[in-house]
Amino acid sequence: MTISLYDLCGADRSLRFSPYCWRARMALAPKGLAVETVATAFTEIAAVEDGGCKSVPVLNDNGHIVRDSFDIAVYLDEAYPEKPLFGDDGVVAAARLIESWSNTTVHPILSRMMIKDIHDLLVPADQGYFRESREKRFGKTLEEAQTGLEANAEALARALTPARHALGHFDWLGGAGPLYTDYILFGSLNWLVAITGRLPLPEDDAVAAWFERCLDLHDGLARQAKRAT
Amino acid sequence: MTISLYDLCGADRSLRFSPYCWRARMALAPKGLAVETVATAFTEIAAVEDGGCKSVPVLNDNGHIVRDSFDIAVYLDEAYPEKPLFGDDGVVAAARLIESWSNTTVHPILSRMMIKDIHDLLVPADQGYFRESREKRFGKTLEEAQTGLEANAEALARALTPARHALGHFDWLGGAGPLYTDYILFGSLNWLVAITGRLPLPEDDAVAAWFERCLDLHDGLARQAKRAT
Repeated sequence: MTISLYDLCGADRSLRFSPYCWRARMALAPKGLAVETVATAFTEIAAVEDGGCKSVPVLNDNGHIVRDSFDIAVYLDEAYPEKPLFGDDGVVAAARLIESWSNTTVHPILSRMMIKDIHDLLVPADQGYFRESREKRFGKTLEEAQTGLEANAEALARALTPARHALGHFDWLGGAGPLYTDYILFGSLNWLVAITGRLPLPEDDAVAAWFERCLDLHDGLARQAKRAT
Repeated sequence: MTISLYDLCGADRSLRFSPYCWRARMALAPKGLAVETVATAFTEIAAVEDGGCKSVPVLNDNGHIVRDSFDIAVYLDEAYPEKPLFGDDGVVAAARLIESWSNTTVHPILSRMMIKDIHDLLVPADQGYFRESREKRFGKTLEEAQTGLEANAEALARALTPARHALGHFDWLGGAGPLYTDYILFGSLNWLVAITGRLPLPEDDAVAAWFERCLDLHDGLARQAKRAT
Protein backbone atom coordinates (compact mmCIF):
# COMPACT_ATOMS: atom_id res chain seq x y z
CA MET A 1 0.00 0.00 0.00
CA THR A 2 1.54 3.29 -1.07
CA ILE A 3 0.73 6.92 -1.65
CA SER A 4 1.28 8.24 -5.17
CA LEU A 5 1.45 11.85 -6.24
CA TYR A 6 1.16 12.57 -9.95
CA ASP A 7 3.66 15.34 -10.52
CA LEU A 8 4.11 17.45 -13.67
CA CYS A 9 7.40 16.82 -15.49
CA GLY A 10 9.43 18.21 -18.37
CA ALA A 11 11.19 16.42 -21.22
CA ASP A 12 13.69 15.55 -18.53
CA ARG A 13 11.26 13.56 -16.43
CA SER A 14 13.21 14.36 -13.28
CA LEU A 15 12.45 18.07 -13.77
CA ARG A 16 9.40 18.84 -11.63
CA PHE A 17 8.34 22.47 -11.82
CA SER A 18 4.57 22.88 -11.29
CA PRO A 19 3.81 25.35 -8.46
CA TYR A 20 0.73 23.33 -7.53
CA CYS A 21 2.65 20.05 -7.42
CA TRP A 22 5.33 21.67 -5.26
CA ARG A 23 2.64 22.81 -2.85
CA ALA A 24 1.39 19.23 -2.61
CA ARG A 25 4.88 17.76 -2.20
CA MET A 26 5.72 20.19 0.58
CA ALA A 27 2.36 19.46 2.23
CA LEU A 28 3.02 15.72 2.12
CA ALA A 29 6.56 15.96 3.49
CA PRO A 30 5.86 16.82 7.16
CA LYS A 31 3.36 13.95 7.39
CA GLY A 32 6.23 11.49 7.18
CA LEU A 33 4.46 9.17 4.74
CA ALA A 34 6.11 7.06 2.08
CA VAL A 35 5.21 8.85 -1.13
CA GLU A 36 6.06 7.93 -4.68
CA THR A 37 5.91 10.80 -7.18
CA VAL A 38 4.80 9.80 -10.65
CA ALA A 39 6.32 11.93 -13.41
CA THR A 40 3.44 13.12 -15.59
CA ALA A 41 3.67 15.19 -18.77
CA PHE A 42 0.79 17.55 -19.64
CA THR A 43 -0.41 15.19 -22.36
CA GLU A 44 -0.35 12.26 -19.94
CA ILE A 45 -2.73 13.86 -17.40
CA ALA A 46 -5.84 12.60 -19.20
CA ALA A 47 -4.69 9.01 -18.57
CA VAL A 48 -4.05 9.49 -14.82
CA GLU A 49 -6.02 7.07 -12.62
CA ASP A 50 -9.73 7.08 -13.53
CA GLY A 51 -9.16 9.31 -16.55
CA GLY A 52 -11.19 12.26 -15.26
CA CYS A 53 -8.30 14.51 -14.29
CA LYS A 54 -7.62 17.79 -16.06
CA SER A 55 -4.62 18.86 -13.99
CA VAL A 56 -2.04 17.65 -11.55
CA PRO A 57 -1.27 17.19 -8.71
CA VAL A 58 -3.47 14.17 -8.17
CA LEU A 59 -3.03 12.15 -4.99
CA ASN A 60 -3.78 8.45 -4.76
CA ASP A 61 -3.75 7.45 -1.10
CA ASN A 62 -4.26 3.69 -1.27
CA GLY A 63 -7.11 4.08 -3.73
CA HIS A 64 -8.56 7.30 -2.37
CA ILE A 65 -8.14 9.92 -5.11
CA VAL A 66 -7.81 13.62 -4.33
CA ARG A 67 -7.39 16.25 -7.02
CA ASP A 68 -6.26 19.89 -6.58
CA SER A 69 -3.35 20.99 -4.42
CA PHE A 70 -5.44 22.79 -1.81
CA ASP A 71 -7.88 19.88 -1.49
CA ILE A 72 -4.91 17.55 -1.06
CA ALA A 73 -3.67 19.66 1.86
CA VAL A 74 -7.13 19.68 3.48
CA TYR A 75 -7.39 15.91 2.97
CA LEU A 76 -3.97 15.31 4.51
CA ASP A 77 -4.91 17.17 7.69
CA GLU A 78 -8.12 15.14 7.94
CA ALA A 79 -6.47 11.79 7.26
CA TYR A 80 -3.18 12.48 9.08
CA PRO A 81 -3.84 15.07 11.80
CA GLU A 82 -0.30 14.97 13.22
CA LYS A 83 1.85 17.96 12.26
CA PRO A 84 -1.06 19.99 10.93
CA LEU A 85 -0.80 22.01 7.74
CA PHE A 86 -3.53 24.38 8.92
CA GLY A 87 -4.37 23.58 12.52
CA ASP A 88 -7.36 25.89 12.58
CA ASP A 89 -10.38 26.64 10.42
CA GLY A 90 -9.34 30.30 10.35
CA VAL A 91 -6.03 29.33 8.76
CA VAL A 92 -7.80 27.30 6.05
CA ALA A 93 -9.96 30.29 5.11
CA ALA A 94 -7.02 32.71 5.18
CA ALA A 95 -4.98 30.24 3.13
CA ARG A 96 -7.71 30.23 0.48
CA LEU A 97 -7.33 34.00 0.15
CA ILE A 98 -3.55 33.69 0.08
CA GLU A 99 -3.77 30.92 -2.54
CA SER A 100 -5.74 33.18 -4.85
CA TRP A 101 -3.50 36.16 -4.08
CA SER A 102 -0.44 34.18 -5.16
CA ASN A 103 -2.11 32.66 -8.21
CA THR A 104 -3.59 35.92 -9.50
CA THR A 105 -0.93 38.44 -8.44
CA VAL A 106 2.40 36.59 -8.34
CA HIS A 107 1.88 33.98 -11.08
CA PRO A 108 1.29 36.43 -13.95
CA ILE A 109 4.66 38.05 -13.18
CA LEU A 110 6.40 34.67 -12.95
CA SER A 111 4.81 33.71 -16.27
CA ARG A 112 6.26 36.79 -17.95
CA MET A 113 9.65 35.77 -16.61
CA MET A 114 9.76 32.27 -18.09
CA ILE A 115 6.74 31.13 -20.10
CA LYS A 116 8.80 30.45 -23.25
CA ASP A 117 11.51 28.75 -21.17
CA ILE A 118 8.87 26.41 -19.74
CA HIS A 119 7.70 25.55 -23.26
CA ASP A 120 11.23 24.75 -24.35
CA LEU A 121 11.70 22.32 -21.45
CA LEU A 122 8.56 20.28 -22.20
CA VAL A 123 8.45 16.97 -23.99
CA PRO A 124 7.66 17.66 -27.69
CA ALA A 125 4.16 16.16 -27.37
CA ASP A 126 3.34 18.78 -24.69
CA GLN A 127 4.67 21.79 -26.53
CA GLY A 128 1.76 22.15 -28.95
CA TYR A 129 -0.83 22.00 -26.18
CA PHE A 130 1.15 24.39 -24.01
CA ARG A 131 1.72 26.96 -26.75
CA GLU A 132 -1.89 26.93 -27.89
CA SER A 133 -3.48 27.15 -24.41
CA ARG A 134 -1.07 29.78 -23.07
CA GLU A 135 -1.09 31.95 -26.19
CA LYS A 136 -4.88 31.96 -26.02
CA ARG A 137 -4.74 32.92 -22.31
CA PHE A 138 -2.21 35.74 -22.80
CA GLY A 139 -3.46 36.92 -26.18
CA LYS A 140 0.10 36.92 -27.53
CA THR A 141 2.81 34.50 -28.58
CA LEU A 142 5.00 32.89 -25.94
CA GLU A 143 7.92 34.80 -27.44
CA GLU A 144 6.05 38.08 -26.90
CA ALA A 145 4.75 37.09 -23.47
CA GLN A 146 8.17 36.29 -22.01
CA THR A 147 9.85 39.58 -21.17
CA GLY A 148 12.45 38.03 -18.91
CA LEU A 149 13.72 37.73 -15.35
CA GLU A 150 15.36 41.12 -14.99
CA ALA A 151 12.58 43.10 -16.65
CA ASN A 152 10.09 41.75 -14.14
CA ALA A 153 12.25 41.57 -10.99
CA GLU A 154 10.97 44.86 -9.58
CA ALA A 155 7.37 43.91 -10.22
CA LEU A 156 7.94 40.60 -8.44
CA ALA A 157 9.53 42.29 -5.42
CA ARG A 158 6.60 44.71 -5.27
CA ALA A 159 4.00 41.96 -5.62
CA LEU A 160 5.60 40.14 -2.68
CA THR A 161 5.05 43.11 -0.35
CA PRO A 162 2.29 41.35 1.64
CA ALA A 163 4.54 38.35 2.34
CA ARG A 164 7.44 40.64 3.25
CA HIS A 165 5.17 42.45 5.70
CA ALA A 166 4.13 39.20 7.39
CA LEU A 167 7.76 38.03 7.51
CA GLY A 168 8.61 41.27 9.34
CA HIS A 169 6.60 39.87 12.22
CA PHE A 170 7.09 36.10 11.96
CA ASP A 171 9.71 33.65 10.68
CA TRP A 172 7.06 31.84 8.64
CA LEU A 173 3.85 32.78 6.89
CA GLY A 174 2.35 30.23 9.28
CA GLY A 175 3.74 32.09 12.30
CA ALA A 176 6.23 30.26 14.53
CA GLY A 177 6.53 27.36 12.09
CA PRO A 178 5.69 26.56 8.47
CA LEU A 179 2.08 25.90 7.52
CA TYR A 180 0.34 25.41 4.20
CA THR A 181 0.35 29.21 3.79
CA ASP A 182 4.13 28.91 3.42
CA TYR A 183 3.87 26.08 0.93
CA ILE A 184 1.47 28.08 -1.25
CA LEU A 185 3.92 30.89 -1.91
CA PHE A 186 6.91 28.57 -1.82
CA GLY A 187 5.36 26.48 -4.59
CA SER A 188 4.84 29.62 -6.68
CA LEU A 189 8.42 30.81 -6.32
CA ASN A 190 9.95 27.35 -6.65
CA TRP A 191 8.24 27.10 -10.04
CA LEU A 192 10.54 29.94 -11.13
CA VAL A 193 13.59 28.45 -9.43
CA ALA A 194 13.04 25.01 -10.98
CA ILE A 195 12.93 26.54 -14.47
CA THR A 196 15.41 29.42 -14.27
CA GLY A 197 17.65 28.33 -11.41
CA ARG A 198 17.20 31.44 -9.32
CA LEU A 199 14.95 33.84 -7.44
CA PRO A 200 15.71 37.40 -8.57
CA LEU A 201 15.21 39.17 -5.23
CA PRO A 202 17.77 41.25 -3.32
CA GLU A 203 19.77 39.10 -0.90
CA ASP A 204 18.62 41.17 2.07
CA ASP A 205 14.95 40.71 1.16
CA ALA A 206 13.10 38.92 3.96
CA VAL A 207 11.25 36.90 1.31
CA ALA A 208 14.55 35.64 -0.14
CA ALA A 209 15.73 34.60 3.35
CA TRP A 210 12.43 32.85 4.04
CA PHE A 211 12.65 31.05 0.67
CA GLU A 212 16.06 29.69 1.68
CA ARG A 213 14.54 28.44 4.96
CA CYS A 214 11.83 26.71 2.95
CA LEU A 215 14.47 25.02 0.79
CA ASP A 216 16.01 23.62 3.99
CA LEU A 217 12.72 22.11 5.16
CA HIS A 218 12.09 18.36 5.17
CA ASP A 219 15.74 17.38 4.75
CA GLY A 220 16.22 19.81 1.89
CA LEU A 221 13.52 18.21 -0.28
CA ALA A 222 13.23 21.15 -2.67
CA ARG A 223 16.88 22.16 -2.46
CA GLN A 224 17.93 18.74 -3.75
CA ALA A 225 15.39 18.73 -6.57
CA LYS A 226 16.46 18.97 -10.21
CA ARG A 227 16.64 22.46 -11.70
CA ALA A 228 16.66 23.15 -15.43
CA THR A 229 19.64 25.51 -15.21
CA MET B 1 -12.70 53.00 34.29
CA THR B 2 -13.39 53.01 30.59
CA ILE B 3 -11.87 52.07 27.28
CA SER B 4 -11.35 54.87 24.79
CA LEU B 5 -10.67 54.56 21.09
CA TYR B 6 -9.40 57.65 19.28
CA ASP B 7 -11.21 57.56 15.98
CA LEU B 8 -10.57 59.73 12.92
CA CYS B 9 -13.41 62.17 12.13
CA GLY B 10 -14.44 64.62 9.44
CA ALA B 11 -15.75 68.18 9.72
CA ASP B 12 -18.93 66.45 10.82
CA ARG B 13 -17.40 64.84 13.89
CA SER B 14 -19.89 62.00 13.73
CA LEU B 15 -18.45 60.97 10.35
CA ARG B 16 -15.90 58.21 11.08
CA PHE B 17 -14.26 56.87 7.93
CA SER B 18 -10.70 55.63 8.61
CA PRO B 19 -10.25 52.01 7.45
CA TYR B 20 -7.82 51.40 10.31
CA CYS B 21 -10.22 52.82 12.91
CA TRP B 22 -13.04 50.69 11.51
CA ARG B 23 -10.85 47.61 11.89
CA ALA B 24 -10.29 48.52 15.53
CA ARG B 25 -13.96 49.25 16.20
CA MET B 26 -15.01 45.93 14.68
CA ALA B 27 -12.30 44.15 16.70
CA LEU B 28 -13.52 45.74 19.93
CA ALA B 29 -17.19 44.98 19.31
CA PRO B 30 -17.25 41.18 19.90
CA LYS B 31 -15.37 41.62 23.17
CA GLY B 32 -18.48 43.19 24.68
CA LEU B 33 -16.58 45.99 26.44
CA ALA B 34 -17.87 49.49 27.11
CA VAL B 35 -15.95 51.61 24.62
CA GLU B 36 -16.09 55.35 24.12
CA THR B 37 -14.90 56.54 20.69
CA VAL B 38 -13.19 59.91 20.74
CA ALA B 39 -13.65 61.91 17.54
CA THR B 40 -10.18 62.98 16.41
CA ALA B 41 -9.32 65.18 13.42
CA PHE B 42 -5.97 64.61 11.64
CA THR B 43 -4.55 67.79 13.21
CA GLU B 44 -5.67 66.67 16.66
CA ILE B 45 -3.72 63.37 16.59
CA ALA B 46 -0.51 64.97 17.88
CA ALA B 47 -2.35 65.92 21.09
CA VAL B 48 -3.76 62.41 21.73
CA GLU B 49 -2.78 60.96 25.12
CA ASP B 50 0.99 61.17 25.69
CA GLY B 51 1.53 63.24 22.55
CA GLY B 52 3.66 60.65 20.72
CA CYS B 53 1.00 59.37 18.31
CA LYS B 54 1.28 59.91 14.56
CA SER B 55 -1.89 58.10 13.56
CA VAL B 56 -5.14 56.73 14.87
CA PRO B 57 -6.62 54.44 16.03
CA VAL B 58 -5.13 54.69 19.50
CA LEU B 59 -6.62 52.59 22.27
CA ASN B 60 -6.56 53.61 25.92
CA ASP B 61 -7.61 50.65 28.04
CA ASN B 62 -7.69 52.10 31.54
CA GLY B 63 -4.31 53.75 31.06
CA HIS B 64 -2.72 51.08 28.87
CA ILE B 65 -2.07 52.70 25.48
CA VAL B 66 -1.97 50.67 22.27
CA ARG B 67 -1.30 52.23 18.87
CA ASP B 68 -1.92 50.67 15.43
CA SER B 69 -5.03 48.77 14.44
CA PHE B 70 -3.35 45.37 14.15
CA ASP B 71 -1.55 45.75 17.48
CA ILE B 72 -4.87 46.70 19.05
CA ALA B 73 -6.41 43.45 17.79
CA VAL B 74 -3.47 41.40 19.10
CA TYR B 75 -3.71 43.20 22.45
CA LEU B 76 -7.45 42.58 22.70
CA ASP B 77 -6.99 38.83 22.27
CA GLU B 78 -4.30 38.82 24.97
CA ALA B 79 -6.27 40.95 27.43
CA TYR B 80 -9.73 39.55 26.61
CA PRO B 81 -9.33 36.00 25.28
CA GLU B 82 -13.08 35.32 25.01
CA LYS B 83 -14.44 35.46 21.46
CA PRO B 84 -10.99 35.46 19.85
CA LEU B 85 -10.15 37.67 16.88
CA PHE B 86 -7.43 35.26 15.74
CA GLY B 87 -7.60 32.13 17.86
CA ASP B 88 -4.36 30.75 16.47
CA ASP B 89 -0.85 31.96 15.77
CA GLY B 90 -1.23 30.85 12.14
CA VAL B 91 -4.19 33.19 11.74
CA VAL B 92 -2.19 36.13 13.12
CA ALA B 93 0.58 35.55 10.59
CA ALA B 94 -1.87 35.07 7.71
CA ALA B 95 -3.74 38.18 8.83
CA ARG B 96 -0.50 40.15 8.60
CA LEU B 97 -0.19 39.12 4.96
CA ILE B 98 -3.85 39.92 4.33
CA GLU B 99 -3.48 43.33 6.06
CA SER B 100 -0.68 44.28 3.70
CA TRP B 101 -2.53 42.85 0.70
CA SER B 102 -5.54 45.05 1.44
CA ASN B 103 -3.45 48.13 2.23
CA THR B 104 -1.22 47.87 -0.84
CA THR B 105 -3.62 46.39 -3.41
CA VAL B 106 -7.12 47.53 -2.47
CA HIS B 107 -6.40 50.93 -0.86
CA PRO B 108 -4.77 52.54 -3.90
CA ILE B 109 -7.91 51.78 -5.91
CA LEU B 110 -10.17 53.11 -3.16
CA SER B 111 -8.02 56.24 -3.00
CA ARG B 112 -8.53 56.87 -6.70
CA MET B 113 -12.25 56.57 -6.12
CA MET B 114 -12.58 59.23 -3.43
CA ILE B 115 -9.40 61.01 -2.35
CA LYS B 116 -10.73 64.48 -3.23
CA ASP B 117 -14.08 63.64 -1.63
CA ILE B 118 -12.28 62.77 1.60
CA HIS B 119 -10.46 66.10 1.51
CA ASP B 120 -13.72 67.98 1.07
CA LEU B 121 -15.25 66.30 4.12
CA LEU B 122 -12.39 67.21 6.49
CA VAL B 123 -12.40 70.07 8.95
CA PRO B 124 -10.66 73.07 7.29
CA ALA B 125 -7.62 72.77 9.59
CA ASP B 126 -7.04 69.21 8.27
CA GLN B 127 -7.39 70.02 4.59
CA GLY B 128 -3.97 71.63 4.16
CA TYR B 129 -2.17 68.70 5.81
CA PHE B 130 -4.18 66.16 3.85
CA ARG B 131 -3.67 67.82 0.49
CA GLU B 132 0.06 68.29 0.98
CA SER B 133 0.80 64.77 2.30
CA ARG B 134 -1.39 62.95 -0.24
CA GLU B 135 -0.31 65.00 -3.24
CA LYS B 136 3.29 64.24 -2.31
CA ARG B 137 2.44 60.52 -2.01
CA PHE B 138 0.58 60.34 -5.33
CA GLY B 139 2.77 62.78 -7.24
CA LYS B 140 -0.33 64.59 -8.51
CA THR B 141 -3.08 66.89 -7.29
CA LEU B 142 -6.07 65.42 -5.44
CA GLU B 143 -8.20 66.56 -8.37
CA GLU B 144 -6.01 64.57 -10.77
CA ALA B 145 -5.72 61.57 -8.42
CA GLN B 146 -9.48 61.09 -8.03
CA THR B 147 -10.76 59.38 -11.15
CA GLY B 148 -14.04 58.28 -9.60
CA LEU B 149 -16.13 55.37 -8.46
CA GLU B 150 -17.25 54.06 -11.81
CA ALA B 151 -13.88 54.39 -13.53
CA ASN B 152 -12.30 52.16 -10.90
CA ALA B 153 -15.13 49.73 -10.20
CA GLU B 154 -13.72 47.01 -12.45
CA ALA B 155 -10.25 47.36 -10.94
CA LEU B 156 -11.76 47.04 -7.47
CA ALA B 157 -13.72 43.93 -8.39
CA ARG B 158 -10.56 42.40 -9.89
CA ALA B 159 -8.43 43.32 -6.87
CA LEU B 160 -10.93 41.55 -4.62
CA THR B 161 -10.48 38.23 -6.45
CA PRO B 162 -8.57 36.61 -3.54
CA ALA B 163 -11.37 37.46 -1.09
CA ARG B 164 -14.01 36.24 -3.56
CA HIS B 165 -12.12 32.96 -3.90
CA ALA B 166 -12.04 32.45 -0.11
CA LEU B 167 -15.74 33.35 0.14
CA GLY B 168 -16.47 30.64 -2.41
CA HIS B 169 -15.43 28.17 0.28
CA PHE B 170 -16.45 29.87 3.53
CA ASP B 171 -19.05 32.37 4.74
CA TRP B 172 -16.34 34.48 6.35
CA LEU B 173 -12.69 35.22 5.65
CA GLY B 174 -12.21 33.74 9.14
CA GLY B 175 -13.96 30.51 8.09
CA ALA B 176 -17.16 29.54 9.92
CA GLY B 177 -17.35 32.90 11.71
CA PRO B 178 -15.81 36.37 11.45
CA LEU B 179 -12.24 36.89 12.59
CA TYR B 180 -9.88 39.83 12.36
CA THR B 181 -9.17 38.82 8.75
CA ASP B 182 -12.76 39.88 8.01
CA TYR B 183 -12.37 43.16 9.85
CA ILE B 184 -9.24 44.02 7.86
CA LEU B 185 -10.99 43.99 4.49
CA PHE B 186 -14.25 45.24 5.95
CA GLY B 187 -12.45 48.31 7.32
CA SER B 188 -10.96 48.97 3.89
CA LEU B 189 -14.29 48.77 2.09
CA ASN B 190 -16.24 50.61 4.78
CA TRP B 191 -13.84 53.53 4.29
CA LEU B 192 -15.32 53.83 0.79
CA VAL B 193 -18.89 53.34 2.00
CA ALA B 194 -18.55 55.95 4.79
CA ILE B 195 -17.37 58.53 2.25
CA THR B 196 -19.35 57.69 -0.90
CA GLY B 197 -22.34 55.85 0.52
CA ARG B 198 -21.88 52.70 -1.55
CA LEU B 199 -19.80 49.74 -2.59
CA PRO B 200 -19.71 49.58 -6.41
CA LEU B 201 -19.73 45.79 -6.81
CA PRO B 202 -22.29 43.70 -8.69
CA GLU B 203 -25.12 42.61 -6.38
CA ASP B 204 -24.39 38.95 -7.04
CA ASP B 205 -20.73 39.35 -6.06
CA ALA B 206 -19.89 37.14 -3.08
CA VAL B 207 -17.82 40.00 -1.66
CA ALA B 208 -20.84 42.34 -1.75
CA ALA B 209 -22.97 39.72 0.06
CA TRP B 210 -20.23 39.21 2.66
CA PHE B 211 -19.95 42.98 3.15
CA GLU B 212 -23.67 43.11 3.94
CA ARG B 213 -23.19 40.33 6.50
CA CYS B 214 -20.39 42.37 8.08
CA LEU B 215 -22.69 45.39 8.30
CA ASP B 216 -25.13 43.23 10.27
CA LEU B 217 -22.50 42.17 12.81
CA HIS B 218 -22.50 43.45 16.38
CA ASP B 219 -26.05 44.79 16.28
CA GLY B 220 -25.45 46.58 13.00
CA LEU B 221 -22.62 48.72 14.40
CA ALA B 222 -21.31 49.77 10.99
CA ARG B 223 -24.70 49.81 9.28
CA GLN B 224 -25.94 52.42 11.73
CA ALA B 225 -22.86 54.61 11.43
CA LYS B 226 -22.99 58.03 9.76
CA ARG B 227 -22.25 58.13 6.03
CA ALA B 228 -21.28 61.28 4.17
CA THR B 229 -23.81 60.70 1.41
